[in-house]
Formats: sequence, structure tokens, C-alpha cells
Amino acid sequence: MLEPSLDLYGETFDKVDAVLADLLTKSHARYAMIIDRKGFVLMHRRALWAPKPPSLDSLATLIASNYSANTAIANLFGEAAFKETVQQGAEVGTYLEELGDKALLVTVFDSSAALGRVKLFTKKAVEEIRVALRDAKDEAPDIEFDQEWSSSTEALLDGLFGSGKS
Amino acid sequence: MLEPSLDLYGETFDKVDAVLADLLTKSHARYAMIIDRKGFVLMHRRALWAPKPPSLDSLATLIASNYSANTAIANLFGEAAFKETVQQGAEVGTYLEELGDKALLVTVFDSSAALGRVKLFTKKAVEEIRVALRDAKDEAPDIEFDQEWSSSTEALLDGLFGSGKS
Repeated sequence: MLEPSLDLYGETFDKVDAVLADLLTKSHARYAMIIDRKGFVLMHRRALWAPKPPSLDSLATLIASNYSANTAIANLFGEAAFKETVQQGAEVGTYLEELGDKALLVTVFDSSAALGRVKLFTKKAVEEIRVALRDAKDEAPDIEFDQEWSSSTEALLDGLFGSGKS
Repeated sequence: MLEPSLDLYGETFDKVDAVLADLLTKSHARYAMIIDRKGFVLMHRRALWAPKPPSLDSLATLIASNYSANTAIANLFGEAAFKETVQQGAEVGTYLEELGDKALLVTVFDSSAALGRVKLFTKKAVEEIRVALRDAKDEAPDIEFDQEWSSSTEALLDGLFGSGKS
């Protein structure tokens, strides 16, 4: 089964969330996302003033698949991968940096942000997130299936397939 | 049939070739290529000091297909396309700029070149190439099939399928 390759819980989640918020404030970027290389959105932040973003799931899938395709170009030059990618359109641009070997940090900015600031603070954020992930001691939360979940699921399945008691 | 979408002949070819040579000298980039969006290499130049490049056909095909994929991301933000893309690895980087609506100018550089200069002189080259293409009055060269071509082809076909005279 396809599962996100980086899990963020508890205190680490809060730390990384604060780093993304800080990144948006300092760089004046619109959105910041952490996605894994399979195309899952792991975390995201949107600046208060930014317009509604497009579907983040679509965006993450496209960015992750393009990242893999770009790796093929990097390999032609004997590089393992391109560590950073900047794309600029007339109004909107994206800046992408590797976050360890499983995830990517994507910053989406518009012409109100200077590219230099976006690069500088994204790099800084990448460093801080790396430290937070390295220091992470959070255990994955236990998922408990209680009596209520059990009986409601049973009722749902019975509704679909019959209770077997009739 | 797949055919290159931009034809460069005679005087225009020489002008554009000089622009690429100038770009390499001034930016200290390794290679400069004009590719069309189907992935054909239309022209290329290599700096004298640069190592042997990887297969330019593979590179052009990968870059053109990634360019299309990236357009899907640009569209999510309401942009027609990303006008420029920078990718940087540990040693080698690529800078890509649109050249009209059919072609792309790709500059490949390494750490001996400053990204600022690469961007500046690639942009300048794009302008100069646009002017050269706009002013182009070269006719496509006539391809003449002479008697020698005709008889050698006939002999070849006869060899393959029989002369029909036996």
C-alpha cells in the first residue's frame, strides 16, 4: 500500500509547523508545503493574505513526479539529483528544495516576494526542519479501536452485506 | 510525422550560432542548446574547455517532456507556463528559458559559472535570437534529387524487393 514516507507527530509536528509559519512571514511567500517523493502532502501552511490555493494534492503529485523525471536529467550529468529547482511564471513561481532523501519542501511565491528572500528563508527552514526531524523522539500515536467503533463498523457491514442472522 | 518545429537555415543559422558562442564565452557555461518542445535538438554549442556532454538527444527529450509536465503545475496557478526554470545539483545546473512558443534555450553550467551571469546572458541571448528569427528571410533550401540519387535508390530497392524484370 502507498503510505506517506515521513511521519510527523506531536511535538515535532508543532515545531515544523512553526518553522513553516515563520518561513511564510519572513519570505512573504504564499504557501509552504512539505511533500514526500510519492506525492503525499505531509504538512502545509498558507499565508493569511494569500488567495485560496489550487488542489494541494494535485500539486504535490505533479511536483513529486516531475522531481523524479528531473532526476533522470541530473543523472545524465553524473549528479544524484538536482538539490534545488526554481520555476518562475509571469506572476507565480515555485522554489523546491530537498528535505533529506524522502521529502521536499516547496515554497510557492508571487511577484510580491523577492526570489532571493524566498531562497534564503527556504534554505534556513530546511535546516531547521532537518534538526527537528533528527531530534524527534515522538512515538507514533497508538490507534485504539474502541467498543463504539467496533459496533458501528459491525452495523455498517451488516447493512451492506446482511447480518447473517436472518 | 514528427518534425522539428523551427527551421534554421543559412544566414539566420550563422547568426544564432554566433549568439550561442557568445553566450558560452560571457557566462562561462558549458553547453547551450536550442531544443523544440517536441524534444529535437535544433542547435547546440559546447565550450572548448567543457567535458564531453551526455547524449544531447536524450537530454533534449527529457527536458522537453519535463517542460510539458511543468506546464501542468503552472496551469494550476493560472499561468500559461513557467517562463524560466533553474535546476541546481552539487556540481552541474541547467537554466531553461522559453524561446517563443515553439522552442527552449537551455544553458548547462557548472560551479565555475555564477548563476547570475548565466541568467543575465541567457536572457540576452534569448532576445538576440528572437530578433534573428523575426528578421529571418532565408528560404528553406531546395532538396534536389539528382540522377545519381535516383539510380542508386532504384538499385537499392531492386536489391531488397527484386527488380521485377526476372
